[in-house]
Amino acid sequence: MPRRIIILTEGHTEPHAGKTAASVIRYRGHEVVALLDGTQSGRTSGELLGTGDVPIVARLDDVPEANTLLLGIAPPGGKIPSNWRAIILDAIARRKMDVISGLHDFVGDDPEFSKAAKASGVTIYDVRKNTEKTIARRKGLRPDCLRVHAVGHDCSIGKMVVSIEITNGLKKRGHDAKFIATGQTGIMVEGDGLPIDCVVADFVSGAAEKLILENQHHDILLVEGQGSLVHPSYSGVTLGLLHGCAPQALILCYECGRDRVTGVESVEIPPLAEIKRIYDVMSNIHQPCKIIGIGINSRILSAADAARERERVKAEFGLPACDVFRDGPDELVEAVIRFKNAGGWHSPS
Amino acid sequence: MPRRIIILTEGHTEPHAGKTAASVIRYRGHEVVALLDGTQSGRTSGELLGTGDVPIVARLDDVPEANTLLLGIAPPGGKIPSNWRAIILDAIARRKMDVISGLHDFVGDDPEFSKAAKASGVTIYDVRKNTEKTIARRKGLRPDCLRVHAVGHDCSIGKMVVSIEITNGLKKRGHDAKFIATGQTGIMVEGDGLPIDCVVADFVSGAAEKLILENQHHDILLVEGQGSLVHPSYSGVTLGLLHGCAPQALILCYECGRDRVTGVESVEIPPLAEIKRIYDVMSNIHQPCKIIGIGINSRILSAADAARERERVKAEFGLPACDVFRDGPDELVEAVIRFKNAGGWHSPS
Repeated sequence: MPRRIIILTEGHTEPHAGKTAASVIRYRGHEVVALLDGTQSGRTSGELLGTGDVPIVARLDDVPEANTLLLGIAPPGGKIPSNWRAIILDAIARRKMDVISGLHDFVGDDPEFSKAAKASGVTIYDVRKNTEKTIARRKGLRPDCLRVHAVGHDCSIGKMVVSIEITNGLKKRGHDAKFIATGQTGIMVEGDGLPIDCVVADFVSGAAEKLILENQHHDILLVEGQGSLVHPSYSGVTLGLLHGCAPQALILCYECGRDRVTGVESVEIPPLAEIKRIYDVMSNIHQPCKIIGIGINSRILSAADAARERERVKAEFGLPACDVFRDGPDELVEAVIRFKNAGGWHSPS
Repeated sequence: MPRRIIILTEGHTEPHAGKTAASVIRYRGHEVVALLDGTQSGRTSGELLGTGDVPIVARLDDVPEANTLLLGIAPPGGKIPSNWRAIILDAIARRKMDVISGLHDFVGDDPEFSKAAKASGVTIYDVRKNTEKTIARRKGLRPDCLRVHAVGHDCSIGKMVVSIEITNGLKKRGHDAKFIATGQTGIMVEGDGLPIDCVVADFVSGAAEKLILENQHHDILLVEGQGSLVHPSYSGVTLGLLHGCAPQALILCYECGRDRVTGVESVEIPPLAEIKRIYDVMSNIHQPCKIIGIGINSRILSAADAARERERVKAEFGLPACDVFRDGPDELVEAVIRFKNAGGWHSPS
């Protein structure tokens, strides 16, 4: 039976909190029948999330054909909003819908939800649930497989979409590329991957390495980044992933106007040149790694300001740079192909 | 009832694998009645681990007074050696002993062990078990509390003992200092702390910050480090802890002769000057942080070579340096007091 998804964003249908919803609509829109948000019913995903034309409804029963409820937010800490419980329970118990969740609070571990799911015979997919216990060993990496990792100056700035758009651009040009999902939304979009931020800390690099070993039959891997090396809450996830996937190339991503750390607004984000220096230091410890392009998220800028910002950044760093949505990903796709063809990046196996 | 501990090190009674055993003997020796290792019985902890004078026995029943079995190793991956199962089960089921374990494989989650424990009415303490789900917020840090963090060039080089010895040295001189345990052995020694490497990755910095917030009524906190920023398997744990505890000062630790990464021997450890540069970069992102001393582990050197190495390192870095066991911790204790008294290190709250 094909999935017909209703995405729950009740009270959170806006681009930042609803980034999971937006990406699922963008990349798996053919499976999405509606958004559920009683505070915004009658509007569309295009109006509120800037992507697709999915209707926003007030009640589950406005879309009787839906058979899957996807929790469409990624809040810090990953807790289930309290006013969502009744909706989730109704979806499971009365509507007999499967549930897909990327929250840290596992829906399937909740006694009420799991009891209802059992009674209804539905499945709860907790995308972040994992039992990874692999230690990174730096063994068996295929030297000819190019690993490109998207990193950034903060969370939620577009590292995932940059990775997906470059992957799709490479595929269109006939390259054997694969997007490596490392977060809950990426996994929902790609259908595989590992939720790196939810692995026990000792095994973060091992989980990342495992993703590489399982997928290195492809020529080019685009590895989704997590957090930021300068994020005081999540930098450990970022570094464990960086060292675990052992990239030969990085795409450095940032969002224009973002100058305070998400969730820790008392902390300033350093200038991009300093961010670049930090990634250069930390990515070159074990093998040569080069920053080969810059992904700009110019969402808040006018077209003219975005064009100026792009030129400024290209001049400052002497690197290809683009906003993959506004400009298309070609410049970064070509940067990856150039780097691949230039050779000299092969890692010791 | 006072604890009378037998430490299980069967087949692993040597300083590296048995570092948990060695530290428990060193710092809680008054509670330890024997080591259990059938391959080494008749010898002593002093001969094999370089500390204490604890007898090594072949059978549990050689020490009828023991009421607690402590698993005395910390292997990579934290698995229970298969030939230990029968011993652990015998201790629980027949001898009705409590069990203390710092392994990643939780003894209490094993159906056979947990059933036996229930039947015997004994307690299994899995020191690494935790349900930490706190995100670091960088709020409420007490500016007058000096946080000193021990970091290093690899795992298992003595960061914990440097932290403990400095703490004890500060206390002897009348300072209000506290050792902050972040690993399984440290927690066994101190009786509190959090197993940072076993926290879900997103919450590593949050767990470290929580330890600070709970203990910052003390004047000086000595925070045990984990792993190394250049360890390809565990660097994420190291950075998450570093950013979570937000130190104003670091003690840089290394072991003489250690030039390959523990567990990933294909990877070389960079020179100490490069290690220092990496810690300087990563510890100064959010607040000023200064490396104020060097902890040398000169275990493998002769007394004369150790003295030469100490002078060489002091000259190269212009920093106080000592081996806390060989030389005593005074030089590092004084470095902390000097840094504290000099002021200028107060962090924004």
